[in-house]
Amino acid sequence: MKRKLLIGLTCLTGLCAALPASAQFAKPEDAVKYRKAAFTVMANHFGRISAMAQGKVPFDAAAASANAEIVATMAMLPFSAFPEGTHGTDKGTPKASVWSERAKFDEGAKALQAESVKLVAAAKSNNLDALKAAVGNTGKTCKSCHDNFRNE
Amino acid sequence: MKRKLLIGLTCLTGLCAALPASAQFAKPEDAVKYRKAAFTVMANHFGRISAMAQGKVPFDAAAASANAEIVATMAMLPFSAFPEGTHGTDKGTPKASVWSERAKFDEGAKALQAESVKLVAAAKSNNLDALKAAVGNTGKTCKSCHDNFRNE
Repeated sequence: MKRKLLIGLTCLTGLCAALPASAQFAKPEDAVKYRKAAFTVMANHFGRISAMAQGKVPFDAAAASANAEIVATMAMLPFSAFPEGTHGTDKGTPKASVWSERAKFDEGAKALQAESVKLVAAAKSNNLDALKAAVGNTGKTCKSCHDNFRNE
Repeated sequence: MKRKLLIGLTCLTGLCAALPASAQFAKPEDAVKYRKAAFTVMANHFGRISAMAQGKVPFDAAAASANAEIVATMAMLPFSAFPEGTHGTDKGTPKASVWSERAKFDEGAKALQAESVKLVAAAKSNNLDALKAAVGNTGKTCKSCHDNFRNE
């Protein structure tokens, strides 16, 4: 179990190191489309795990693990796709504070990434209580960034 | 290298086994949004590798590998999100043939999944010619499905 997680962490670290350099978008709208897509996929798979944590669907450690791995992978992607000037005022769009408080935003991204790696570990532990705790902690990182940086 | 790929393949197989059972969408439009998002992320990362294969950006095996792993992961996702009745006539929407020729569509999905796993191996091999060949083969599976099943 630990070995598998270690491999997962190594992959994610590799991903982190390898991706930003090539994370270029021809147009700002390409970045917007990409980041929205990454968040959509992440939210869907996080939702599937949340449903298990909430007892809405039966707990299935294999499915939870597969979904958590996608969440952890997706969590690495969208934050390179916030070029300046791509804020908005509509519901769901980023506030300009993403750029005026970029360090805080980046910290929020790192918190999500760290918690989603723990989510993978919790899912693999086959312990529903551990999964519930990890879902809660991951969800808090989502909410924190949304509260600070997303128009509601 | 082989060990890493094996782990990758195992993960993907696990993903394949674990995901469809929970791939449920409350509404057809949720499935449409999800599958479009998965294709958007996949296309973006495939594009980054293609740019290397075409010599538009320098070949970087680590970045190619990270991008290929995302392509391979994303390739597993959208095909559970084609509930009947979600075809269209606009450019980019699926034709009704997705459902009338579902076996052929599923075969196309499997071909993409298989080629994208080979793309990961090629990227990890640090051999630009191998990468070019794998990009070509993966791209053919995209085109084949688009020609048959997507409105242009």
